[in-house]
Amino acid sequence: MPWRTDAAVVLLSGGQDSTTCLAWALDRFAHVEAVTIDYGQRHRIELEAATAIARRVGIAQSVIPCDSFATLGGNALTGGVAVSSTPGPGGLPNTFVPGRNLVFLTLAAAYAWQRSIPALVTGVCQTDYSGYPDCREDTMVAMQDALRRGMDAPFTIHTPLMHLTKAATVTMLRDLGRLDLLRDSHTCYEGRRPPCGACAACVLRAKGFAEAGIADPLTA
Amino acid sequence: MPWRTDAAVVLLSGGQDSTTCLAWALDRFAHVEAVTIDYGQRHRIELEAATAIARRVGIAQSVIPCDSFATLGGNALTGGVAVSSTPGPGGLPNTFVPGRNLVFLTLAAAYAWQRSIPALVTGVCQTDYSGYPDCREDTMVAMQDALRRGMDAPFTIHTPLMHLTKAATVTMLRDLGRLDLLRDSHTCYEGRRPPCGACAACVLRAKGFAEAGIADPLTA
Repeated sequence: MPWRTDAAVVLLSGGQDSTTCLAWALDRFAHVEAVTIDYGQRHRIELEAATAIARRVGIAQSVIPCDSFATLGGNALTGGVAVSSTPGPGGLPNTFVPGRNLVFLTLAAAYAWQRSIPALVTGVCQTDYSGYPDCREDTMVAMQDALRRGMDAPFTIHTPLMHLTKAATVTMLRDLGRLDLLRDSHTCYEGRRPPCGACAACVLRAKGFAEAGIADPLTA
Repeated sequence: MPWRTDAAVVLLSGGQDSTTCLAWALDRFAHVEAVTIDYGQRHRIELEAATAIARRVGIAQSVIPCDSFATLGGNALTGGVAVSSTPGPGGLPNTFVPGRNLVFLTLAAAYAWQRSIPALVTGVCQTDYSGYPDCREDTMVAMQDALRRGMDAPFTIHTPLMHLTKAATVTMLRDLGRLDLLRDSHTCYEGRRPPCGACAACVLRAKGFAEAGIADPLTA
């Protein structure tokens, strides 16, 4: 099968950023599929959010399991470690799971390769100051090169949020006319619905909506 | 902890190539650890081989599970597909599992990152003509760059077999004085022990020993 230049695979976690990327992809590509990685998230509600969002827009969603990181452990998002603002190894936030985004992108690429889809879309962003090196543009450019060579395929990693503030991300989704998708999204580190409003993820999300002057459909 | 320049992590599958890489690493680094990926191999005997070899040399071995590829499926090494010489998608051998080596390297790097070990050793080889694009040197160079950027770490991917023939690999292990390690190794695609001698993997292995003029400890 020739490469389908009208199609894209979106890494959909169920959070605000990947949901915005899904809306972006639906606006640009005739055919969109979602890949969600089940990596042993602390809260299953994230996976449920991704599935609900994919259903709402009527696209195929594949959940790919990845049990590696639960075993590697030692971090706050999959291990038994509390989320904290104290830096972990290398001065990085202790929510940093080394290699996670690189593996997720590779799995999405493997899925896309089997379907002759060259466009990969991910919501990584270097402007939200989370300090994750695997969210930076230089890492994405390097990874795109590795995926192209490693699978002999013309992959492009699209990162529509890379240089946006959280407020600009909110505005983008509004302009795409798909703020409604956020009703099913999930952000809270504590796994609460309605969200706790106090964790770092909730605070960052609320700040973005406040700065954009838009009400969050999740909490409105 | 500062980066341990005297230490290395070897990706040990239990096959001839990774076993040779382990011997190479033991000869160069004061501290060596092995990472074995349990990705749903057709034959559990491969995992048993890796564990036996690590025990024989007295190093720590960690088995990291990776259930993603069994779900991605569609290939001969993990799916329900027969090994065949008929090319699969993109003209690649149907034993090609897209993204596999890239994910394994990333998992080994994540493991090494947690232990401040910058050296990664893998037995990929572009001269054995298997046609896997993720075994080529340009892919390894690109992946090294992605891992360095994605984890903010001074990783080096060592590929001591990259430009060797199978015969030269045998000779290297002999010169390292560790041919004995191959007694526990596993190569046969059919999962047989003693090996079937007829599958592509067995034939390639036998050819290497024949050309090197050395007896294979596994079948001798």
